[in-house]
Amino acid sequence: MPVSPIKMADAIRVLSMEAVHKAKSGHQGMPMGMADVATVLFSKFLKFDASKPDWADRDRFVLSAGHGSMLLYSLLHLTGYKAVTMKEIENFRQWGSLTPGHPEVHHTPGVETTTGPLGQGLATSVGMAMAEAHLASRFGADLVDHRTWVIAGDGCLMEGVSHEAISLAGRLKLSKLTVLFDDNNTTIDGVATIAETGDQVARFKAAGWAVKVVDGHDHGKIAAALRWATKQDRPTMIACKTLISKGAGPKEGDPHSHGYTLFDSEIVASRAAMGWDAAPFTVPDDIAKAWKSVGRRGARVRKAWEAAVAASDKGAELTRAMKGQLPAGAFEKLEAHIASAVENKPVNATRVHSGSALDNLIPSIPEMIGGSADLTGSNNTLVKGMGAYDAPDYAGRYVHYGVREFGMAAAMNGMALHGGVIPYSGTFLAFADYSRAAIRLGALMGAKVVHVMTHDSIGLGEDGPTHQPVEHVASLRAIPNLLVFRPADAVEAAEAWQVALQQNTTPSVMCLSRQKTPHVRTSAGENQVAKGAYELIAADGEAAVTIFATGTEVGLAVAAREILQSQGKPTRVVSVPCWELFDQQPAAYRKATIGSAPVRVAVEAGIRQGWERFIGEDGKFVGMTGFGASAPFERLYKEFGITAEAVAQAAG
Amino acid sequence: MPVSPIKMADAIRVLSMEAVHKAKSGHQGMPMGMADVATVLFSKFLKFDASKPDWADRDRFVLSAGHGSMLLYSLLHLTGYKAVTMKEIENFRQWGSLTPGHPEVHHTPGVETTTGPLGQGLATSVGMAMAEAHLASRFGADLVDHRTWVIAGDGCLMEGVSHEAISLAGRLKLSKLTVLFDDNNTTIDGVATIAETGDQVARFKAAGWAVKVVDGHDHGKIAAALRWATKQDRPTMIACKTLISKGAGPKEGDPHSHGYTLFDSEIVASRAAMGWDAAPFTVPDDIAKAWKSVGRRGARVRKAWEAAVAASDKGAELTRAMKGQLPAGAFEKLEAHIASAVENKPVNATRVHSGSALDNLIPSIPEMIGGSADLTGSNNTLVKGMGAYDAPDYAGRYVHYGVREFGMAAAMNGMALHGGVIPYSGTFLAFADYSRAAIRLGALMGAKVVHVMTHDSIGLGEDGPTHQPVEHVASLRAIPNLLVFRPADAVEAAEAWQVALQQNTTPSVMCLSRQKTPHVRTSAGENQVAKGAYELIAADGEAAVTIFATGTEVGLAVAAREILQSQGKPTRVVSVPCWELFDQQPAAYRKATIGSAPVRVAVEAGIRQGWERFIGEDGKFVGMTGFGASAPFERLYKEFGITAEAVAQAAG
Repeated sequence: MPVSPIKMADAIRVLSMEAVHKAKSGHQGMPMGMADVATVLFSKFLKFDASKPDWADRDRFVLSAGHGSMLLYSLLHLTGYKAVTMKEIENFRQWGSLTPGHPEVHHTPGVETTTGPLGQGLATSVGMAMAEAHLASRFGADLVDHRTWVIAGDGCLMEGVSHEAISLAGRLKLSKLTVLFDDNNTTIDGVATIAETGDQVARFKAAGWAVKVVDGHDHGKIAAALRWATKQDRPTMIACKTLISKGAGPKEGDPHSHGYTLFDSEIVASRAAMGWDAAPFTVPDDIAKAWKSVGRRGARVRKAWEAAVAASDKGAELTRAMKGQLPAGAFEKLEAHIASAVENKPVNATRVHSGSALDNLIPSIPEMIGGSADLTGSNNTLVKGMGAYDAPDYAGRYVHYGVREFGMAAAMNGMALHGGVIPYSGTFLAFADYSRAAIRLGALMGAKVVHVMTHDSIGLGEDGPTHQPVEHVASLRAIPNLLVFRPADAVEAAEAWQVALQQNTTPSVMCLSRQKTPHVRTSAGENQVAKGAYELIAADGEAAVTIFATGTEVGLAVAAREILQSQGKPTRVVSVPCWELFDQQPAAYRKATIGSAPVRVAVEAGIRQGWERFIGEDGKFVGMTGFGASAPFERLYKEFGITAEAVAQAAG
Repeated sequence: MPVSPIKMADAIRVLSMEAVHKAKSGHQGMPMGMADVATVLFSKFLKFDASKPDWADRDRFVLSAGHGSMLLYSLLHLTGYKAVTMKEIENFRQWGSLTPGHPEVHHTPGVETTTGPLGQGLATSVGMAMAEAHLASRFGADLVDHRTWVIAGDGCLMEGVSHEAISLAGRLKLSKLTVLFDDNNTTIDGVATIAETGDQVARFKAAGWAVKVVDGHDHGKIAAALRWATKQDRPTMIACKTLISKGAGPKEGDPHSHGYTLFDSEIVASRAAMGWDAAPFTVPDDIAKAWKSVGRRGARVRKAWEAAVAASDKGAELTRAMKGQLPAGAFEKLEAHIASAVENKPVNATRVHSGSALDNLIPSIPEMIGGSADLTGSNNTLVKGMGAYDAPDYAGRYVHYGVREFGMAAAMNGMALHGGVIPYSGTFLAFADYSRAAIRLGALMGAKVVHVMTHDSIGLGEDGPTHQPVEHVASLRAIPNLLVFRPADAVEAAEAWQVALQQNTTPSVMCLSRQKTPHVRTSAGENQVAKGAYELIAADGEAAVTIFATGTEVGLAVAAREILQSQGKPTRVVSVPCWELFDQQPAAYRKATIGSAPVRVAVEAGIRQGWERFIGEDGKFVGMTGFGASAPFERLYKEFGITAEAVAQAAG
């Protein structure tokens, strides 16, 4: 007799409530409420093979409502992801376990993305679906053909990023993306309607999605809805009407059970209600077996796919791209470009230099996918011939993200996690504040993406203080595992791109100028940006002064050096394109680079925060102390006292 | 013969295109496209008096599409805001002018909020409408009865924050809020449909708004639509179908004219098309006169309102609140609470101490309006008896913002700018990243708001690295004009609230712990937090070590001091609840507080960035160097090496 799917769902419910109960921390409300939907999805629709979590053509499952992590951990354990043992379930939310409070990618096999910060799982999944559509076009449906499934809650859909995500997905007609909305009318503060009365179904429809409402506890109707979803020509949203904590006896349907740990007596009542009498943290054999067979369901398809890859003349290329290995000769053109720039000393804005670097990368690295949040011309992110990424064939390599900085950054994370593409995109540096939560999450996940951020200081001029970054370089440097580049000229810009693309588990930000700035680099050869900081010009004589500078202010430092040398003060200039890489250098190199000149000055058209590590507690800093203003940039630099003369005077 | 309203609109068009042309920078596309709508709004509906820009009961007009600033400057000039002379129009986007690139509140009379970062004007306007509704309830419709009008573009509506704003406004049924959508199908990268195909009208409807579509160049139909808007029982959105750069001859309707400066020949063609032959930067007398009379239109109503205020027994209280003066005895209860805390040494989480401070403030300061982004119980932001802020009467003082951190922070800015209320609200500190763009804009605008940010370190424990702030305190400290408090106990928490509420032009962030922390403060009297840093415990003997600490780590510093003293190393402890206030102290105080102990150590459960200013280049720092992890907090502090022993060892 086959095991009842309700019993299979109950296994999720019981594991979830007992793990939370043991940890005295976590959320069983959502896992219990969505157990039925998840059971139908995993046992009948999701293409996966628990023995091969990294199968490239698997469906992606994203738990956007990441606080319900026990839903996912239960599924991973039950379907037979080897590492996710019952001991791990028992160690939910404990130090060193594979079952942390929120799902963490690259930590637990089967977890596709780190979720918890609401709305972002949904936005990340849009990127996964985008990557799939592009690769399917590039490699053919026999090698790439999978779906992205998302569970999202009321909280996810209240977050603004959900709007950016669903309107982008609707615009791009991502038909292999399905959102399962846990429509239980519950948030932490109580019934969701205390804060939300919007019509989610109408809203998704307005964004171009196909929509459906279903009883989230009726397995037959859930299956019919999921089948319907696979047949639409646009992204699909299924509002699953559920009871929070379904099965939890007296707590079933109670909004306060969202992040509540059941009392012992409530556990007993819940088990009784479900007719579940197995010992804690055990699953009856028949149910366990049924789940294990779900986990093996995809093995046959996976093997057929492996054979197809082996047989295809595109298979090796797909494998390379999915592994994140750069193609042979990826940097040949770029290195020639660097050599030429050392020779020709082009004077321009560093955003233009970044664009030139891209001109030499895009033809060599076919997996690079660019874009901009509606600032293409300003960000210099488009290279001729990339083609617009769009339905129906998605072969284009340039995404018109629209004015959706946060959704864009999250989608880039999703593309990187999906694999097979290297996403970069552009906006103004000041608007890093809009996408910051996704930049951070990308850093936490080790997603290889590049954020091009132009107009990187008061140097943007007339647009004024709302658009002028002052604290942004410092605040991005604060994020762990993120490389923040601020290149000074064409050579450094190209070197920065090279270093960024050589990373595997670290995202990068390129801070680039709107205004022109002098060429400063005189030597090619070794990539100097890779060291984070280096002596650009030695002192003429024993150094009395060291000037540290980044980006557009390196030119000022060089000019200040001239003044100081002429005053008989031998001065060296250190260019500091990337603090984080400098921190990784050997102590001796760092010491030598900082040097022992008695006077140290730093100049950067931003705030001082953190510069003491270069200039010491009493070092001089030339930069900003507050917000900027609206005026032509030359005037601003003068009014705010960021000039070669001011640097020389600070050293004097 | 009355002047044609089309001619009045043409005056806006001509001033806009010529100011942009002269500055060789800016956007005439939107001002020219929306000139007709703005003309109808200002001349027939907007309640204002150009001679009294600060009239409390004026309608608020928000140009959310702030890049179209010349629309607003033209209107301010034409209607007779005295400071906005034609010379200022000619100096558009120049240093020191009243006409910066984007509108800046408190800089140009008649500008209600700083806009430019897209979507935020709309979200800010929701707060203005919220403040109006509350004050109307508190003071009666004869003293408070005005509307909020917003112009928003495609870009504003693509931003995620627009979703948070409109769903919040829809939920709260803010019927005096009207959004005029410049529906011109244009963004910087080209026609808006390259990135957006959503149905904005359906979307607003789904969020509970009343909606209408109108020809944005038909003055009669515009007037009918605006009249309709004033009669709805919910917020209203009017999609105004417009041509970008309407009137600009060959450039009319051209997407590329968004941020494009017309050529001389195009200016000539545009003037010819409009039949405009006045000299540049002059307006024909009859048109100028018609506009001036629009500017005086509200004077009679304004005077009647002034008389009503003078006659009302609530008038003085309204005036006080609108001026931002605290009531007499605002801090009496709080000061008694502080004295009692010094005596009773309560041990608890600092979020609980913040809640206790609020218990003693809410009854004394009736203009305080609280709320949370769906984390009320965790943020300790609700004080008994506040009542939920909700339709129909809006008398409640606690807003259920929902999971909308960004929309919440922007709404708080709007409330503060409106005046008459002091908003505060709560979320987790890690989610400051979601609202950061609004926190920054509030700092730039000098909006008096308080962001309560709890769960301020790895001390939140099991929720794990997505929810654990590591770099957030540093990155908030980077924002100019923002006070970042991290109090150590009940006394510091209450003092921090007092200082925050004493600000007039500076917002504050309270970083507060989830976990309990020891009481450390032994003396009451002078507010020590107001100094930013102070010696909490002197060394027993000539100081060999100074330990600097904030928040929950002050207790660790005190324990480390015990260890060091017992090792014969006289140690002083400096509590540093607010860097920014410390920076404002006299140099002598700063020097004395930092002291001259040969060893300096800082401890904070966050990153080191910037601490060198206290501990010097080679000082020791005990804190975090990367992301956290999921586990009970005691384990995390031990695993990450943030302990009294580690602090003592670092000093050894």
